[in-house]
Amino acid sequence: MGFWKTWFSTSEANSTTRTTPSEEYAVETVGNSDLNGVGEVHQQETRIVFSTERDLDLYELEELCDSVGWSRRPLRKVKKAIEHSFLVASMWQVRGNKRRLIGFARATSDHAFNATIWDVVVHPDFQAKGLGKALMKYVLKKLRSEEISNVTLFADPHVLDFYRGLGFMSDPEGIKGMFWYPH
Amino acid sequence: MGFWKTWFSTSEANSTTRTTPSEEYAVETVGNSDLNGVGEVHQQETRIVFSTERDLDLYELEELCDSVGWSRRPLRKVKKAIEHSFLVASMWQVRGNKRRLIGFARATSDHAFNATIWDVVVHPDFQAKGLGKALMKYVLKKLRSEEISNVTLFADPHVLDFYRGLGFMSDPEGIKGMFWYPH
Ligand SMILES: CC(C)(COP(=O)(O)OP(=O)(O)OC[C@H]1O[C@@H](n2cnc3c(N)ncnc32)[C@H](O)[C@@H]1OP(=O)(O)O)[C@@H](O)C(=O)NCCC(=O)NCCS
Ligand SMILES: CC(C)(COP(=O)(O)OP(=O)(O)OC[C@H]1O[C@@H](n2cnc3c(N)ncnc32)[C@H](O)[C@@H]1OP(=O)(O)O)[C@@H](O)C(=O)NCCC(=O)NCCS
Repeated sequence: MGFWKTWFSTSEANSTTRTTPSEEYAVETVGNSDLNGVGEVHQQETRIVFSTERDLDLYELEELCDSVGWSRRPLRKVKKAIEHSFLVASMWQVRGNKRRLIGFARATSDHAFNATIWDVVVHPDFQAKGLGKALMKYVLKKLRSEEISNVTLFADPHVLDFYRGLGFMSDPEGIKGMFWYPH
Repeated sequence: MGFWKTWFSTSEANSTTRTTPSEEYAVETVGNSDLNGVGEVHQQETRIVFSTERDLDLYELEELCDSVGWSRRPLRKVKKAIEHSFLVASMWQVRGNKRRLIGFARATSDHAFNATIWDVVVHPDFQAKGLGKALMKYVLKKLRSEEISNVTLFADPHVLDFYRGLGFMSDPEGIKGMFWYPH
């Protein structure tokens, strides 16, 4: 029962979300045709759950990022980044009392005008099923509920169409994303 | 002396800057050829001072933003944005015991990997003198001292070259800035 306890409790670290615990996640039932039900009398239901809980297992998150080939980052810095993000969104596959982290996204913000979304990822086993879109819609809903009027991100060329499908525009009115790296 | 007291004190609201007060600003002496020294025995020295102090007069800041034609924003939200920015940088013209806010910039961040710079502005009376560049260098120095490895911003088309001159690259490796507005 430990898992559910964690699941339904509010994150105290999450100072930005002023919603009640029951709004902290949305539940969607997905088709379970890919479940191996052989030998089971009752086929278990698979659900996809979204959360803004920040108390993530950093090793589980690292595994998720590894699965899409992202280069490793020091866990100490990942921890700090999660603490200081305005929004941390995770997506879970839940079967009975087992859960698996299958998606993640976070956003920095000034809590007033702008938010910038970083580190959007869906595990390859779960890609191309509409789950990335569902995760992003969850993120946008949360940001909108905080009255953020300008949501931005920096998109790799191969995911431009993914974000366009969600209503993001690239270079509106010629505004360009720019990067500076220390030297 | 009230001004100098404010000036040299550390901002308690500023939880991100771990520098000592004496590092909170840099002083540059600029040419004072535009000073009207007539009738004065001792011509007053004009200095440009940079600060990360957050305790700004919001009306003075609004005036600065007005001067470059930006649309007004609710002061309540500006206050919140300043509180929740990672870095708030201001530039002042100081003459004797008088000071004037002549430049501003701020950055959001996850305190670990990324920072995004917003609201870069220099008063028209002080533009094209190298002060915007000096302000941005001050901002970059501060971000670098916090080990931020990825500094980003969204640039209007007419200021792309200003940022390029500071080492910013637009769309590196095809990465595009994208925007989403609530509907
Ligand atoms: C990008 C990513 C999050 C998309 O998640 P996903 O679950 O596969 O996406 P979905 O199934 O929800 O796709 C939603 C829509 O976007 C489209 N789409 C998804 N990935 C796409 C891509 N790489 N290029 C173009 N369109 C894409 C889908 O075709 C679908 O379109 P539809 O609504 O018209 O059917 C996921 O592929 C991923 O994690 N990739 C690796 C990490 C990464 O590159 N992150 C982005 C860094 S900027
Ligand atoms: C953009 C702005 C901050 C620049 O400040 P500034 O003090 O005028 O700039 P500087 O004098 O330091 O200029 C530094 C360099 O950038 C160049 N530069 C300045 N403004 C430029 C512009 N609009 N387009 C192209 N180059 C520009 C200068 O020629 C100078 O080049 P150099 O180093 O080769 O001599 C200022 O003009 C401003 O506040 N503009 C209005 C607000 C705005 O548009 N902000 C940016 C929003 S994204």
